[in-house]
Amino acid sequence: METIQTNKPINVLDKGFVKLVDIMPKNYTDPELKCDEAIVRAARVSYNQSSKGTERDKKLIQYLVKHHHSVPLESIVFQFQIKCPIFVQRHIVKHRMSSMNEVSARYTKVIDEWYTPNKVRKQCTKNKQSSDGFLDDTLSEQFDSACQSSYKKYEELLEKGVSREMARIILPQSMYTQFFWKIDLRNALHFCNLRNAPDSQWETQQYAQAIEKIIQETNPVSYKTFREQNK
Amino acid sequence: METIQTNKPINVLDKGFVKLVDIMPKNYTDPELKCDEAIVRAARVSYNQSSKGTERDKKLIQYLVKHHHSVPLESIVFQFQIKCPIFVQRHIVKHRMSSMNEVSARYTKVIDEWYTPNKVRKQCTKNKQSSDGFLDDTLSEQFDSACQSSYKKYEELLEKGVSREMARIILPQSMYTQFFWKIDLRNALHFCNLRNAPDSQWETQQYAQAIEKIIQETNPVSYKTFREQNK
Amino acid sequence: METIQTNKPINVLDKGFVKLVDIMPKNYTDPELKCDEAIVRAARVSYNQSSKGTERDKKLIQYLVKHHHSVPLESIVFQFQIKCPIFVQRHIVKHRMSSMNEVSARYTKVIDEWYTPNKVRKQCTKNKQSSDGFLDDTLSEQFDSACQSSYKKYEELLEKGVSREMARIILPQSMYTQFFWKIDLRNALHFCNLRNAPDSQWETQQYAQAIEKIIQETNPVSYKTFREQNK
Amino acid sequence: METIQTNKPINVLDKGFVKLVDIMPKNYTDPELKCDEAIVRAARVSYNQSSKGTERDKKLIQYLVKHHHSVPLESIVFQFQIKCPIFVQRHIVKHRMSSMNEVSARYTKVIDEWYTPNKVRKQCTKNKQSSDGFLDDTLSEQFDSACQSSYKKYEELLEKGVSREMARIILPQSMYTQFFWKIDLRNALHFCNLRNAPDSQWETQQYAQAIEKIIQETNPVSYKTFREQNK
Repeated sequence: METIQTNKPINVLDKGFVKLVDIMPKNYTDPELKCDEAIVRAARVSYNQSSKGTERDKKLIQYLVKHHHSVPLESIVFQFQIKCPIFVQRHIVKHRMSSMNEVSARYTKVIDEWYTPNKVRKQCTKNKQSSDGFLDDTLSEQFDSACQSSYKKYEELLEKGVSREMARIILPQSMYTQFFWKIDLRNALHFCNLRNAPDSQWETQQYAQAIEKIIQETNPVSYKTFREQNK
Repeated sequence: METIQTNKPINVLDKGFVKLVDIMPKNYTDPELKCDEAIVRAARVSYNQSSKGTERDKKLIQYLVKHHHSVPLESIVFQFQIKCPIFVQRHIVKHRMSSMNEVSARYTKVIDEWYTPNKVRKQCTKNKQSSDGFLDDTLSEQFDSACQSSYKKYEELLEKGVSREMARIILPQSMYTQFFWKIDLRNALHFCNLRNAPDSQWETQQYAQAIEKIIQETNPVSYKTFREQNK
Repeated sequence: METIQTNKPINVLDKGFVKLVDIMPKNYTDPELKCDEAIVRAARVSYNQSSKGTERDKKLIQYLVKHHHSVPLESIVFQFQIKCPIFVQRHIVKHRMSSMNEVSARYTKVIDEWYTPNKVRKQCTKNKQSSDGFLDDTLSEQFDSACQSSYKKYEELLEKGVSREMARIILPQSMYTQFFWKIDLRNALHFCNLRNAPDSQWETQQYAQAIEKIIQETNPVSYKTFREQNK
Repeated sequence: METIQTNKPINVLDKGFVKLVDIMPKNYTDPELKCDEAIVRAARVSYNQSSKGTERDKKLIQYLVKHHHSVPLESIVFQFQIKCPIFVQRHIVKHRMSSMNEVSARYTKVIDEWYTPNKVRKQCTKNKQSSDGFLDDTLSEQFDSACQSSYKKYEELLEKGVSREMARIILPQSMYTQFFWKIDLRNALHFCNLRNAPDSQWETQQYAQAIEKIIQETNPVSYKTFREQNK
């Protein structure tokens, strides 16, 4: 009986991370299937004699993924801890088939951490919603100084006795936030398909890639089949 | 046959609104029930002879609302258009049993509209997440000037060719956004119960109250029963 | 301003039907788009000047359907009334993103209506879950007589004072049931894709086809695009 | 580090059971909290230093349950294996916020197992949907013989080459079925509240009680608070 490793953070952007905090199932017996064993169990509706050998189990998983028989994939559940800028969280929260517990900027003071891009992207002229190419790196500082100045005003307002819930509204959308995010394999793959895609914002793609790395590690067979289908 | 009036905006905060864009059912025959007729139809699973008279229909609706037999309430569907600050949208989007189509700040330039509070609230000392009482009104200007300065930097970045999706990350969470929000009566009442409540942020309460006003207008019987239960 | 026709039943199997009881939006202005207008409105987040002409609107709808930008499709909501055998209802209810209000066999006596197949299908030898070819038509009577005899025992139990909720458990899964079923366009198309497919039970396919006919009538552009993608 | 015991079936009715097949989290450190630890972690959005001592953790859980701050409760996920009559499964499947993988009577022959009630309940005259008191125990045999005769016809049809998917439609709703059912704590408690209630069918109550027993064992603090609120 092997156990899935949890709590190793994958660093994302300048100060963020994605961490697998818990997973169901946590243990597995077949190292070629790992958590994918739970798909086989659910699809065959039998716990004890569920496996029919690695090869037949693999074929069943591949069949289910390819033909969108997706309910057995809901048997695998991830609990992630994620630290990301608010504008990325605003993309993630739109995936409704999941549970998000976020820190409250009403309850505690916001920490002085914001995302400062390394490279500043140019507006794409062909695709209205995308970037294309890079601008001078010195622009990066202007992002940082804008956030510094907003954060300073935030602290001033707090010192004057303004409530946290009001003062925080002047803070930029690049401030880091943190949350626990529970999502099952079916919906996690759908998330990766939409957000690790060229029309997704680059910063959001980085988070989707970190989640993909974890899925690949815990669910090798279903992940491989999924990626062969969605290149 | 009467028709529910749509497209009259209810003004909220300094520049926001809530507007009922569409509703199902749109027509009704009994002015005491209005859209609540659809609850009776669904609960009795019959379209033509569904009504058993206003009094018996009212009692059925009251019974369903009181005893949490909530599925018939899902028969009424609202399509709202909402304009609110981003920090309010971040509360609304957490209600997952709904559909949100939001304008994209990647696709079009953000308009120079942000929320400036009239009255600035003090941090509550007893309740860590709340406000309590007011501070000097002149503080209101500091909110406005902070947003002005952030917006100016946003425009400068755009002028230098920075992509919209990047430049907008320095904009404050008080910027106005707009979205279409589809939600059924069951979930709309749950939303009002949580967000038109003393522990909800004051600004978010104002939006919940506008939505309550619309529900009261379109679904008088179920609304009254709901509010008698949740004072 | 045109209005979608409702309440015309489409007959399905020997005694069943599918009926569009209500729809949002109920009215439309462009006969080439009909309810698909609501997709355009939601995608453009603007009610009044939403249309940019039939051709550009059509292209937007086609783009959204093809690229799985599915949230605007949730703006169209159907309320169906369906009469079908219980074994078909058991397939329909598995589609969770919908609301079902079903008649209760605990509350009222079950009517003497069951599905009797016209043609009796042979077990397929290649595909374990399918039928293949037909058997002698006289077998049809055996289905009918089995149900007759079960229904007779049901009535005997009721006469002896047995509660409805207990007596009904001996009734066969071919008994007809009725329900209101609310589902949005996104999920209705997904339902048709899975259930109007060769690996779906033939009787369930008939219901999916009736629903497709209604969608085609109310949402011509999105329906056509969907079917071109899923042949 | 303790581990939650799984795979002990709780017998329900004459041939059914409820079995906890897997759970997230599977391990716990505080025997007074057990899986409720995951609620604390999610609510505080911090994995490592989440506990503030048993007493403060308990108070947090009680506060969340009492005030319907329910999202942290979604952090606990159960995978059940359930064997129950079809008419009970038809109640369970209506709880949409869950995942059900059921054995297919199209794919394999239905086993000769049906529910035969020990005691036969009388129709209640006051409450149209309920039973009240008992009838002569000999009536129990009539349930059994009705099912025997239907099952015999089912086997005859199969022998004549009728496809499984067709032959099974004459089988009664008291036939046993099996499924894997994944549901989180929030929705499992809601299920128990509705189905372990006097207006729920007695047989369905037995399954809800088995599930409650498991929840009480794995989540002692939240369960106790829930039951104090919903007596």
